[in-house]
Amino acid sequence: MEIIRIGILGYGNLGKAVEKMVKEHPDIELAGIYSRRKLNHPLAKPVDRLCVGEPIDVLILCGGSATDLPQQTPEYARLYNVVDSFDHHQQIRTHYKRVDEAAKKGRKLALVSCGWDPGLFSIMRALFTSILPESNVFTFWGRGISQGHSDAIRRIKGVKDARQYTVPLESAMEAAKMYMAGGSHLEPGKMHRRECYVVAEAQADLERIAKEIKTMPDYFADYETTVHFITQEKLHAEHSGFPHGGTVIGVRPGSTGIFQLNLSSNPDFTAGILISYSKAVYRMWKEGEIGCRTVLEIPLQMLCEDMFIHM
Amino acid sequence: MEIIRIGILGYGNLGKAVEKMVKEHPDIELAGIYSRRKLNHPLAKPVDRLCVGEPIDVLILCGGSATDLPQQTPEYARLYNVVDSFDHHQQIRTHYKRVDEAAKKGRKLALVSCGWDPGLFSIMRALFTSILPESNVFTFWGRGISQGHSDAIRRIKGVKDARQYTVPLESAMEAAKMYMAGGSHLEPGKMHRRECYVVAEAQADLERIAKEIKTMPDYFADYETTVHFITQEKLHAEHSGFPHGGTVIGVRPGSTGIFQLNLSSNPDFTAGILISYSKAVYRMWKEGEIGCRTVLEIPLQMLCEDMFIHM
Repeated sequence: MEIIRIGILGYGNLGKAVEKMVKEHPDIELAGIYSRRKLNHPLAKPVDRLCVGEPIDVLILCGGSATDLPQQTPEYARLYNVVDSFDHHQQIRTHYKRVDEAAKKGRKLALVSCGWDPGLFSIMRALFTSILPESNVFTFWGRGISQGHSDAIRRIKGVKDARQYTVPLESAMEAAKMYMAGGSHLEPGKMHRRECYVVAEAQADLERIAKEIKTMPDYFADYETTVHFITQEKLHAEHSGFPHGGTVIGVRPGSTGIFQLNLSSNPDFTAGILISYSKAVYRMWKEGEIGCRTVLEIPLQMLCEDMFIHM
Repeated sequence: MEIIRIGILGYGNLGKAVEKMVKEHPDIELAGIYSRRKLNHPLAKPVDRLCVGEPIDVLILCGGSATDLPQQTPEYARLYNVVDSFDHHQQIRTHYKRVDEAAKKGRKLALVSCGWDPGLFSIMRALFTSILPESNVFTFWGRGISQGHSDAIRRIKGVKDARQYTVPLESAMEAAKMYMAGGSHLEPGKMHRRECYVVAEAQADLERIAKEIKTMPDYFADYETTVHFITQEKLHAEHSGFPHGGTVIGVRPGSTGIFQLNLSSNPDFTAGILISYSKAVYRMWKEGEIGCRTVLEIPLQMLCEDMFIHM
């Protein structure tokens, strides 16, 4: 069994999940954890070391999509085979192009946007669209924590802490399963509702906070939104996990395909995908492939020991 | 838009479904229907013509897995790019090897076992196994017609006609979703029941027929089986379609992935998959690939016009 040496860049929720999930893969060795912060960890190394040339087969980039990955993925794709979970759907084409150029310069292989969505759900959308021609394809998210929406609430004055759950509307899922010719008109705001758990500061104006949440453009204004004020203790006790999931539905007259994920831990699951695909990236790179890829360009056989056992 | 010319070999249920579904693909042209029988069809051509070298980019093999495909796929893979839906799970490795040799000799590309199972469900099993390590993966079939089981009933003395539905047991599907460490012990006979609709000949001994069905080894003996005797008219009216579907469940502690298909017409759906993948085969062959492949070796991007719209 060949051992693949991976490095982790970024030690937040996702980086820690990769470290934890690596233990399930006997053919993976964690070679180093790279962070700008000083970590108290036996495998911690300063980020600068990456420029020197570390003994790593694949570097897993665990930073955020807003500022870290647009800069880090092209930068390190020149030096290492890399995998990231860049998740700004509208910007994937641009990100891909920049990473592709960098990876080709360094003769390395990069995989971008490899998580559950984009990633796994992209696979389902591509599959349904091609095997159910003229079908409608719908993506529902949740029930699960949205980090971005939770952060948006926390930025409101008077808010100490908050968690936001995205919840798919059962009625919309049922409507999606009934094919509507000519494309359907389900908008995200008609497919999901938003459930907010908020810890307010003492003496904060709860009514104002609730109003600010519900009217926040892009984030909440177009959705059915409920706001529950709770104590910090209750937030910790009942809302400290990172559950997530979602459903992709492809439908045409007479045929329905449904793919559904229910995950107790979003970071653990994303970490698992990143690790599995790291192996594919390393194998394909050894076969001479360079440049950038999405999951749609990776044959699943590259993730398997023996593809015939799945046939 | 480049037009891909396909040929159909075999004009049973599946061949007819391919002919019908081709109309949904503006980039596919049906170049010929090849059959040993004399067909009254403007595109019909005798099978011998295939040896001469027909103007076909991909030949879709629509024969049966028992005797047609083991002989035809290697034979024609030497002359054309081919796609088949060979579905004897245990023999795929052997079939693949023989087709691979033939295709390499002819410098053509072949894709085998490309239907919904094996095929689409193989994709799901491979995916769940790799992204949910240490998970249990279960495949349920139905509710749908099993052609093989219907045929088995028809061979019983006194039976005029019959249709058999394979039905997944709800209780077993619920049990599957609850992870059982160390692998689970759900056997096919504990996951499905079999529902038979039988038209008996006049004066036939119904009790004997029912007993012969229920005790038939491999086919029915290990299953909860119900037998309903009905008239030929009722069979035509209520059981003449080919609905099918199934569910693949991947489960590990805290995470569940579910893929479910509901199809009003099994042949139409299989035909759709064969046509979609024919395009991938042609594109990959033009890029220089030869030999045999399974769906697990075809990147989904090969089925898409623009992969980024699915990301």
